[in-house]
Amino acid sequence: MAPTMTAPSLAALLGDEWRRPGRTAQALADALRGMVVDGRLPARTRIPSERSLSDALGLSRGSVSRAFDRLRDDGYLVSARGAGSWLTLPPGAGPAAPPRLAEDGEVDLTIGALPAPDPLLADAAARATAALARHLPGLGYAPAGLGELRMAVAARLTARGLPTTADEVLITAGAQHALRLVLDLVVGPGDRVLVDAPAYPRTLMAIRAARARPVPVALAGRGWDPDGWAAAARVAAPRLAVTVPDFHHPTGRVMRAAEREAVALTCARAGAVLVVDETCAELRLDGPALPPPLGAFDPGGTVITVGSMSKAAWAGLRIGWIRATARAVRELATIRTAVDMAGPVLEQLVAVELLDSWDAVLASRRALLRLRRDALLAALAEHAPSWSVDRPHGGISAWARLPTPDATHLATAAAAAGILLSPGPAFSVDGTFERHVRLPFTLPPDTLRDAVGRLAKLARELGTETRAAPTPVARDAALSAV
Amino acid sequence: MAPTMTAPSLAALLGDEWRRPGRTAQALADALRGMVVDGRLPARTRIPSERSLSDALGLSRGSVSRAFDRLRDDGYLVSARGAGSWLTLPPGAGPAAPPRLAEDGEVDLTIGALPAPDPLLADAAARATAALARHLPGLGYAPAGLGELRMAVAARLTARGLPTTADEVLITAGAQHALRLVLDLVVGPGDRVLVDAPAYPRTLMAIRAARARPVPVALAGRGWDPDGWAAAARVAAPRLAVTVPDFHHPTGRVMRAAEREAVALTCARAGAVLVVDETCAELRLDGPALPPPLGAFDPGGTVITVGSMSKAAWAGLRIGWIRATARAVRELATIRTAVDMAGPVLEQLVAVELLDSWDAVLASRRALLRLRRDALLAALAEHAPSWSVDRPHGGISAWARLPTPDATHLATAAAAAGILLSPGPAFSVDGTFERHVRLPFTLPPDTLRDAVGRLAKLARELGTETRAAPTPVARDAALSAV
Repeated sequence: MAPTMTAPSLAALLGDEWRRPGRTAQALADALRGMVVDGRLPARTRIPSERSLSDALGLSRGSVSRAFDRLRDDGYLVSARGAGSWLTLPPGAGPAAPPRLAEDGEVDLTIGALPAPDPLLADAAARATAALARHLPGLGYAPAGLGELRMAVAARLTARGLPTTADEVLITAGAQHALRLVLDLVVGPGDRVLVDAPAYPRTLMAIRAARARPVPVALAGRGWDPDGWAAAARVAAPRLAVTVPDFHHPTGRVMRAAEREAVALTCARAGAVLVVDETCAELRLDGPALPPPLGAFDPGGTVITVGSMSKAAWAGLRIGWIRATARAVRELATIRTAVDMAGPVLEQLVAVELLDSWDAVLASRRALLRLRRDALLAALAEHAPSWSVDRPHGGISAWARLPTPDATHLATAAAAAGILLSPGPAFSVDGTFERHVRLPFTLPPDTLRDAVGRLAKLARELGTETRAAPTPVARDAALSAV
Repeated sequence: MAPTMTAPSLAALLGDEWRRPGRTAQALADALRGMVVDGRLPARTRIPSERSLSDALGLSRGSVSRAFDRLRDDGYLVSARGAGSWLTLPPGAGPAAPPRLAEDGEVDLTIGALPAPDPLLADAAARATAALARHLPGLGYAPAGLGELRMAVAARLTARGLPTTADEVLITAGAQHALRLVLDLVVGPGDRVLVDAPAYPRTLMAIRAARARPVPVALAGRGWDPDGWAAAARVAAPRLAVTVPDFHHPTGRVMRAAEREAVALTCARAGAVLVVDETCAELRLDGPALPPPLGAFDPGGTVITVGSMSKAAWAGLRIGWIRATARAVRELATIRTAVDMAGPVLEQLVAVELLDSWDAVLASRRALLRLRRDALLAALAEHAPSWSVDRPHGGISAWARLPTPDATHLATAAAAAGILLSPGPAFSVDGTFERHVRLPFTLPPDTLRDAVGRLAKLARELGTETRAAPTPVARDAALSAV
């Protein structure tokens, strides 16, 4: 099950910055632990033998052996006769629980949601209420969604470069609900599901709720890692994979066209359905144009695209969709009847009306998000200069890297101070990403500035500012977009 | 796992009508097969030894032995050394698949849904659209539901005899969705869930989708069987139970007050959560007043009540609720965020407005349902006099008993002729109830009359009319209500 890393690959990933003359073993142990804790190496990565690693690093075998012993003592390395050794996280370093719900007066940075686009939404609701009359004599029951909304979504997907017919669209109560239905259709207990590392926490929760097992594939360099996907698909034999290629949540990255093609092909060859979450695909704020939708690289009906109006319009709508083959849509509609029967009629009519003025809706969202993103980045530069963050060119959140792996401590202290925050481990299968926090830029600029100031102060009090210098990372996520 | 039936009980259940002089063995085999096929005995019922049954029935042991041999040859009886014998259904007689979705021009008797109460729903939508303005500056995100709707539902439950506060209410997308959330909270793979036999098909689908195992408890006499519940709870050690005490779906029965008390206590003692589905509780058409809500008999926080506006108002709304302890509601709200995040705001406001004119809504629904029920019963009396049906005093459907166990054949023939019909086995865990079909009385009177006429003709062509005389059954479900 575990991915294996060769000695030269691991040596290349380690680089040379970790070396500390005179205390090589401890430094190597620290470097390896850091990589698994902050997610650069997925937990359960199999590592090379002491001998091959000592060769690749140019170290004595004794130093490597002592480093491994320290990792073993601390619970970060497990060895089994005949199966080699693999990095892991000790008990208690597991994945974070779902965040508690915010109480009045707290600042909730665990939710990325905007107020409704007014007056566009109120206008759409008024028009929908008028259109409702036509539907009242009916039974109000359409498990695949209202015909007019299926057509409108299909037209929008087609306009975005993904030719789609209405019978290839199922209307859902948002992207989360869409993923849940696909999981019900495709996976059973114990099935493996490839996910990005980091991944959206509720994606991981939904996979686990389906009793399936998320298998992380690390993002690499500035984009995705086709070789990593191929290796994971080979080893894990997944039934399903989930990725967020357009303004990836939480990193903001964009998947290159060549990566899209490779990931789609890898999944198809492995017999895995690839779910493409396009929740933020229409929220480009600046930077280069997006590549074609990942679904356009589908080699043969194995890509399912899910989308939502929750970020692009308003979370209070609860409208999303699944784009799949007409046959899969029929099967999903049947499954849906055992989950929640069908979607509400009036809400779907509001969505039809909103799609009618979609360009204006998007323009309003983008203008708001641009302001708020810039406020967040300015606040980080001012209050938390040692935190490092890729400038997101779209979507709703930034992925900030702390100078030390203390995200969970910071989130705990912040919650006590009335700021709910998603620490990196919430985005990981295995408790990694302790160096990261996700910062949505959906709250008003003043709230964001105030929250960042308070978070930075808390971080200083925890000492995360002083224990290590930041590692340089790329400052522009858009470079990963082609 | 299997319930055991003593020889005297089985003899009492068999009565004497099955006896055929000169062919005793075949007649006994037919009688036992009939009881498992049409659901009077749950499949996997353990039966007494040949000797004790021959004593109880006053038959030669050889006759009983030959009857058992015939059942064994046909796949209806399984014996294992040391474990005795139990009745079962042969392969292929398994539970029905979910019904396909109706196509244009077909009559869909698999759905029990009414048109919207007009102008009440249109008026509520207009008022809700006006109220929406107040919510647009917010994030539209309330996993437990809008405060004002939680309060309105709590007030309605309190008025119905189930004192409830707003923090004990979670708003859902209907009763199906509510059950799904409770399943996510309470059960894991392999857990047993007690269900009525017969039960609502989508309840069984949801339990199976949660990888749990429905365990049927047969309705008995004219109501529920507290002893059967106690025995099943003892043997199955269930984590959850689901019942529909008010105008039970599909039979229309009402659970007596004493049965409510006993079932609630049995579940509490077994450590099982009891889900009470009140979908039709407000749709009393005539007959005696209902006993207090089952939740009023909760001995200590182990009863969860779910309800819905789908039958009482309109299925196009997708509004339901869960009433549970405030603590369970918080846990369910967290689970919900991984299923579909939250409910739509506008739809919840429509529900608030509808509850404001709830008495008028119910009056409109009841008037419509009374007319349609009477049309259905009249059509059955005219076209299918050999079918037997308890007159439902509420709810949306009747449970008709055919003279022969051919419900699946009839449903198949009907589907080919453009009438979708739910055969009895769709309501069973194990393919029983082949003598029954569910007939909702939600379609217009003319449609119902036409459909019943065509179904009766199909049944005659299949020969179900001629092969056996109907067994007399009680004609008044209200007698079971106290």
